[in-house]
Amino acid sequence: MKNNQTASALPIHRYQAYHEQFAVDLPDRTWPTKHMEKAPRWCAVDLRDGNQSLIDPMSPERKRIMFDLLVRIGYKEIEVGFPSASQTDFDFVRSLIDEGAIPDDVTIQVLTQAREHLIKRTYESIAGAKQAIVHLYNSTSILQREVVFRESKQGIIDLALFGARLCKSMEATIPGTTIYYEYSPESFTGTELEFAVEVSNQVIEIFEPTPERKVIINLPATVEMATPNVYADSIEWMSRNLAHRENVLLSLHPHNDRGTAIAAAELGFLAGADRIEGCLFGNGERTGNVDLVALGVNLFTQGIDPQIDFSDIDTIKRTAEYCNQLPVPERSPWAGDLVFTAFSGSHQDAIKKGFESMDAQAATDGCTVNDLVWAVPYLPIDPKDLGRSYEAVIRVNSQSGKGGVAYLLKTDHSLDLPRKLQIEFSGVVQTKTDAEGGEVTSDQIWNIFNDEYLPAEHTQPDAKWGRFELFSTRTASDLAGSVDLTVDLRDGDTTSTATGTGNGPINAFLTVMASRGIAITLYDYVEHAMSAGGDALAASYVELDVNGKRYWGVGIDADISTASLKAVVSAVNRGIRVEQQTATPELAAV
Amino acid sequence: MKNNQTASALPIHRYQAYHEQFAVDLPDRTWPTKHMEKAPRWCAVDLRDGNQSLIDPMSPERKRIMFDLLVRIGYKEIEVGFPSASQTDFDFVRSLIDEGAIPDDVTIQVLTQAREHLIKRTYESIAGAKQAIVHLYNSTSILQREVVFRESKQGIIDLALFGARLCKSMEATIPGTTIYYEYSPESFTGTELEFAVEVSNQVIEIFEPTPERKVIINLPATVEMATPNVYADSIEWMSRNLAHRENVLLSLHPHNDRGTAIAAAELGFLAGADRIEGCLFGNGERTGNVDLVALGVNLFTQGIDPQIDFSDIDTIKRTAEYCNQLPVPERSPWAGDLVFTAFSGSHQDAIKKGFESMDAQAATDGCTVNDLVWAVPYLPIDPKDLGRSYEAVIRVNSQSGKGGVAYLLKTDHSLDLPRKLQIEFSGVVQTKTDAEGGEVTSDQIWNIFNDEYLPAEHTQPDAKWGRFELFSTRTASDLAGSVDLTVDLRDGDTTSTATGTGNGPINAFLTVMASRGIAITLYDYVEHAMSAGGDALAASYVELDVNGKRYWGVGIDADISTASLKAVVSAVNRGIRVEQQTATPELAAV
Repeated sequence: MKNNQTASALPIHRYQAYHEQFAVDLPDRTWPTKHMEKAPRWCAVDLRDGNQSLIDPMSPERKRIMFDLLVRIGYKEIEVGFPSASQTDFDFVRSLIDEGAIPDDVTIQVLTQAREHLIKRTYESIAGAKQAIVHLYNSTSILQREVVFRESKQGIIDLALFGARLCKSMEATIPGTTIYYEYSPESFTGTELEFAVEVSNQVIEIFEPTPERKVIINLPATVEMATPNVYADSIEWMSRNLAHRENVLLSLHPHNDRGTAIAAAELGFLAGADRIEGCLFGNGERTGNVDLVALGVNLFTQGIDPQIDFSDIDTIKRTAEYCNQLPVPERSPWAGDLVFTAFSGSHQDAIKKGFESMDAQAATDGCTVNDLVWAVPYLPIDPKDLGRSYEAVIRVNSQSGKGGVAYLLKTDHSLDLPRKLQIEFSGVVQTKTDAEGGEVTSDQIWNIFNDEYLPAEHTQPDAKWGRFELFSTRTASDLAGSVDLTVDLRDGDTTSTATGTGNGPINAFLTVMASRGIAITLYDYVEHAMSAGGDALAASYVELDVNGKRYWGVGIDADISTASLKAVVSAVNRGIRVEQQTATPELAAV
Repeated sequence: MKNNQTASALPIHRYQAYHEQFAVDLPDRTWPTKHMEKAPRWCAVDLRDGNQSLIDPMSPERKRIMFDLLVRIGYKEIEVGFPSASQTDFDFVRSLIDEGAIPDDVTIQVLTQAREHLIKRTYESIAGAKQAIVHLYNSTSILQREVVFRESKQGIIDLALFGARLCKSMEATIPGTTIYYEYSPESFTGTELEFAVEVSNQVIEIFEPTPERKVIINLPATVEMATPNVYADSIEWMSRNLAHRENVLLSLHPHNDRGTAIAAAELGFLAGADRIEGCLFGNGERTGNVDLVALGVNLFTQGIDPQIDFSDIDTIKRTAEYCNQLPVPERSPWAGDLVFTAFSGSHQDAIKKGFESMDAQAATDGCTVNDLVWAVPYLPIDPKDLGRSYEAVIRVNSQSGKGGVAYLLKTDHSLDLPRKLQIEFSGVVQTKTDAEGGEVTSDQIWNIFNDEYLPAEHTQPDAKWGRFELFSTRTASDLAGSVDLTVDLRDGDTTSTATGTGNGPINAFLTVMASRGIAITLYDYVEHAMSAGGDALAASYVELDVNGKRYWGVGIDADISTASLKAVVSAVNRGIRVEQQTATPELAAV
């Protein structure tokens, strides 16, 4: 089987493999063997990195809504702006402090470059806060050193140290505020590891961290440049080589240029990081910051508490969409509109069986489904645990099979169709959807089901559904194996009373029908109550051979006996309908 | 620095860590040390897995457009449907064959379950094709065995072998078509590795692969259940344990439930896979299949030819959006509307310097920028290489600084502002955008620039811009270091002729202004031609001290001398304007 792929015209000579530029030699890496065991410290940067990437940056009102959301769901470290760079950011930080919006256990974080007037302004912005993280950064990458700063390595180190020293000296200006420090060798992924650790270690010395007052060293994948295992290697290498590691919180700040930021954060966390910075739903510059929602719920699926309350993910999503004025995409992990949706027939079938199996298990164990370990095919998580409904789980289109249709009838109408009827009916649905295209809602399925099997109650009262219609039934049993049945039956336009005898009402009714020229054999019969209680309706399903062809019929009535007779009428009417429409297409296979 | 995070109320008891359910013991894994060196074989499944996940599945017309797109950009293996499951899919496969739409070097692939009537129908669907891959699958996961099939391991193996044997025997019915086989132990990530390799190896024996006719063993992350390194371990393990490995094409089929499908595909490829199945832009069930565009362009950024033509990614995107009736999100790697956009001031500044540095390098080397290795901060790739324009790269909002503003003025108006003027002007822009919010277009920036520095030509002709206006200038130089200047000058409502003398026209003009009571000191002066050629306009920038405060002024004229005098008028008028509006706020720092 030949590989027929051919060279494209893309100018590959313009790009160089990452490993040819940056070597990370770590043959004894340990992270691939590790497992996540607890949540990292989170830092939400929606109000800074997220906000600066928006077409329409947040107004003060939208910023405040975002801040309150982040606090409410449990983030304790929140980067609230770059106050020295914009008056809006400065005013917002001030408003949080002046209005007492910051709970005592929440630490705000503010970004600053290592420049004198910016640092001074930064300290002005946080005066009066109980505590704050001053996040100092300068770019250390080869490219930025050469192109942007035109500085030697020593010049870059001097800049960082100048900033760190100035920060320390500014503490005295706001004695009421406990200051913590974060330093980012920005564009870390474009920096030689040896240089990144050198500048970081010198900054650490200036900040003099202790176990009680650790310094955060944040290693940004400002641009994601390699596969996530390479980032993990670099994190493990840094973790081994940082000075005073016990007094350092190693922080990750992945961007998503290659689409692997979530993986980079997870593997970097395995590699020894303590903390992760990101944004809800992966907002942020270009392809975004790492998605904090995905990271958190991913932990949850492993039985690990993310320490963030994702139990109402729809509200979190709507709030973020309002603040960012950007939609959360349909396929965004755990939160997108379509991520718990199965259109495929085989998937729907398996999901239905999974729900049933869990119900059965709970009944056996004498507990509720909520006490069991979640186990439903194609649904890695119970949508209810995130506050999402099952409504979206099963949706039907022309690619769907019997499972989805059956699931919706059961969920929305308490009808538990026998398997063979599921197949027959899904063929009916598929014929319609193949012809018309598009999704079919649960309501539409119910209408199709009514049109096909039940007297169409939703049409005008005088509409007649098929050749026969049952108006009343009376049975008399002698308890010796014989039942006399009397029915008022419409046949065409004529209604009359008819009687029949058999070993049960169905059997008796077949003799009535035989007298009208309809030859019927009964193949299958299933009946179930549609709810608990004595006044419940019963649903009855029969499979008949009507004049040589097989049809299912459905009947619903409070009287189980009448329900079954209605089911016979349903099947007979369907058979006659087909005979009258010889051009009706064969039902499609499922 | 205390970690204040607290437990959430999420029911973590309902979920179990993956590694507690599925052990992959591979301490001697080799994939973390490897690098990608060439493109995998690609298989695009947009018309099957992608299509079945759509709210509105593709019409035959949209399917054909998608198929033709996939062929045009270079995919050679294309899964075109599940023809036995829907009449629409069957008809589409037939139409491709009957209309001769499949190039000789393209192999279509069709999915089927291991059931007799489905397999027979599948072979009917591909009759007449030059070649086809029959893709046989059955679910092998623990959960599906227990809940969906209620079958023993042997029962699952028997089902697979029954299907494989029937496929082989069906070959005789379509002798004109060369058949290749793919087998998927579906829900591979929920299957014990030992069982996955057992069923796969038994299927391999039946298909009797050879080096010329390899069998594809496809290992789907039908649901993504663990970090991508675990998937990579499982792929390396399978690669070591598959029978007749030399005659097997090991294929990956990652889904994106955890948001790490791209990473899983890349690490799995390092782990020994030969082939990757996915969809353009990550369409597919739930969170989607792995994104083929991201995977391909990721390779390109490493100097590796993806063998797919992504040189017009916008057309690919628009076509996929039309076919799928789903938007490609703004932050979708390489293709989203915002992924090459920098709103941040420091990013914009660095990008601008990167472009300038590449221009300078090209000039030094006597080549074009296209011959150089790409090196621009915050832009991991040249958008032009994907057929995207630079237009979107720099966008300005209230978070932007001087870099973006300066870039747009240079690109769109050939004005190369001195650095200090960039800072001054970005403060002007920021004041406006902080107040009004939202993005600022290049046109709006130009209007702000005009309003601030240039006579506002876009307002009515009789509008007077500032106290002074220059109507004509004449200079006479004796070539001995002295210039006589005569100007027609409006001062308020009065226009008159004035003369001055100096060592140059600017100096002479300052004496004219001094005679009007304006004390001026010249601090800086820069001038440049705005294009090549003798009739080019010149742009002139001056920094003056006007009555004790510093202002920049800008002048544009075909006569370089007149341009500089206009610049002086611009600065003076600005200074007077500020004096008249003492309430004008200070310019924000950048």
